[in-house]
Amino acid sequence: MKADRIHNFNAGPAALPLPVLEEIQESFLNFAGSGMSVTEISHRSKWFDDVINDAVGRTKRILKLDDRFQVLFIQGGASMQFCMAPMNFLGDGDTADYVNTGTWSTKAIKEAQIQGKVIKVVASSEDRNFAYIPKDIAFNPEAVYAHITSNNTIKGTQWAQFPDTGGVPIVSDMSSDIFSRPLDMDRFGLIYAGAQKNMGPAGVCLVIIRDDLLARCPEDIPTMLRYSTFAAKNSMFNTPPCFAVYTVQLVLKWLEESVGGLDKMAALNQKKAGLLYDYMDQTDFYRATADRDSRSLMNVTFRLPSEDLEAKFVADALQNDMGGLKGHRSVGGCRASIYNPTPLAAVEALVDFMKTFEGANG
Amino acid sequence: MKADRIHNFNAGPAALPLPVLEEIQESFLNFAGSGMSVTEISHRSKWFDDVINDAVGRTKRILKLDDRFQVLFIQGGASMQFCMAPMNFLGDGDTADYVNTGTWSTKAIKEAQIQGKVIKVVASSEDRNFAYIPKDIAFNPEAVYAHITSNNTIKGTQWAQFPDTGGVPIVSDMSSDIFSRPLDMDRFGLIYAGAQKNMGPAGVCLVIIRDDLLARCPEDIPTMLRYSTFAAKNSMFNTPPCFAVYTVQLVLKWLEESVGGLDKMAALNQKKAGLLYDYMDQTDFYRATADRDSRSLMNVTFRLPSEDLEAKFVADALQNDMGGLKGHRSVGGCRASIYNPTPLAAVEALVDFMKTFEGANG
Repeated sequence: MKADRIHNFNAGPAALPLPVLEEIQESFLNFAGSGMSVTEISHRSKWFDDVINDAVGRTKRILKLDDRFQVLFIQGGASMQFCMAPMNFLGDGDTADYVNTGTWSTKAIKEAQIQGKVIKVVASSEDRNFAYIPKDIAFNPEAVYAHITSNNTIKGTQWAQFPDTGGVPIVSDMSSDIFSRPLDMDRFGLIYAGAQKNMGPAGVCLVIIRDDLLARCPEDIPTMLRYSTFAAKNSMFNTPPCFAVYTVQLVLKWLEESVGGLDKMAALNQKKAGLLYDYMDQTDFYRATADRDSRSLMNVTFRLPSEDLEAKFVADALQNDMGGLKGHRSVGGCRASIYNPTPLAAVEALVDFMKTFEGANG
Repeated sequence: MKADRIHNFNAGPAALPLPVLEEIQESFLNFAGSGMSVTEISHRSKWFDDVINDAVGRTKRILKLDDRFQVLFIQGGASMQFCMAPMNFLGDGDTADYVNTGTWSTKAIKEAQIQGKVIKVVASSEDRNFAYIPKDIAFNPEAVYAHITSNNTIKGTQWAQFPDTGGVPIVSDMSSDIFSRPLDMDRFGLIYAGAQKNMGPAGVCLVIIRDDLLARCPEDIPTMLRYSTFAAKNSMFNTPPCFAVYTVQLVLKWLEESVGGLDKMAALNQKKAGLLYDYMDQTDFYRATADRDSRSLMNVTFRLPSEDLEAKFVADALQNDMGGLKGHRSVGGCRASIYNPTPLAAVEALVDFMKTFEGANG
């Protein structure tokens, strides 16, 4: 492969489109004729204004956001959003619903509770080790919002359809499947997504906020923890993480101009995940861990007949230039993360390798 | 200049050492033989462990930190530290002292007050538009900490010596002069510094915390706002801003191995600033704005005889491949930011240009 690169199945930070990396590399000493690196230009310059405005504009176009929504870039990852959402939206007497589908949902719930906010866990798949997405959930019509984790990187599950909340705005952690499929934005009040899976490097979190939730932000919390601070200043109340925003901009440009938009991206993601699941469904050697109707198109989690074989699989794969296939340390097993930037060719190579490995070890 | 680069006098994000930028560029598609970009490797990998541990180790060596101190990397910039320090250190009945030396101190004070913390502004230079650093300050011996801004980017002032607080630990925003000179660490309880001036790109804040202040962090605030969270997990409770940490690591390596350490860096910074101030002191055409004993070695702020000449100066400088010389929008005038990475040759070129400009317009 080019520059001795491997097929990268990391869960995050994860693979980025090679043309994006090449563009960054090419211009790294002199960005857009500025005579400076993109890491050296002022965030108050025309150069960076163009970067952030393009990233915002592409986000709005790709997701078909109307004027109710603002696009923000905030530091601290999804973990910071776990605390910011309840801090901004829940005042005295307010309540919110949470659905618990695994590690990240559990953390989001904890950060609301630590602040003494009143929340209700209306559904959980903990009874079967988070192997499925709960159905037929009774949401509380009085809730200010309903929080879900749209894709669960560790357990390999994903909401195939978003739940009917009876009009309560969904607040969703979409760190691992943002921009992977079209969304009906009428359902969402807030979407947040750490960049380091589907759209960029670690160090920036994309936040999409609707005007009714934005209006709830209080004035008596620290400035940097208020969504309204970022909304009022185009995410530049203070110096933003410029390099990360720039990389996101390039990935979104790639998504629009090279992939051809969200419908094509979604079809490609279906095809990539389909290759893996279809193959595993034909053999007993590999076993997908998530319930069939809850399978993630982003993180394909699976087991082999033994932990020894799993370790050998991961090691042999790396010998064949395929990295990042070890499952999360909290659950073991294997995992192939195949976010937007992962090319079809990488998944095809992986399936070929899986067949060969099964032939030799099955 | 190489790759058509300019002399970059930006206040931040600012110039980075060219060898650092070249190393990033060279390895951008394949970091340390991983077959992945540094933006694509897992933060749980040996590769990134080596990066962050090296950055921490170099910080400890360069600043001669003993075992009382921990080195953390936190997102959100100094602006997030304005809220985190009082949130973590001031409980009921506690108080802290603040010295107001300009825009950034004012913001730090505001973020303590917004949380209802009890603080006292023990000195301020607002009476003369922050053109000096206050002296002979009566600090409160009961204060948990005394907050200062060690260098003021906008007004061009800097604490030449740190104040005698009678043993109260200093909490200092050192965003714009960290690693520019040796420090007597016995005086400090917390140092924080956004990377984008003296040591890296925007998107990470270096925090140095002493054990007695670390022990004050409460358990009932959000996880991502607690210093203890970062201290317990080597700054990797969640995904850190990997690229920014990596760049900081390379800048610190450059500082240790190419510059030769902090004493040599400080001597070079004295020499660079001296060239500018000495020249301005010989002419009435340029007027340094800060009191002589409070002049910053990092941000040299100055005025010309008229705003028209200032605008012409900035424009002509850019024609001569010198960028970033416009003063902060809140104060006007001119400013040459000459942080660690700014080479002596850039300052020499600037002084030459200033002489030529004075000759043509004086």
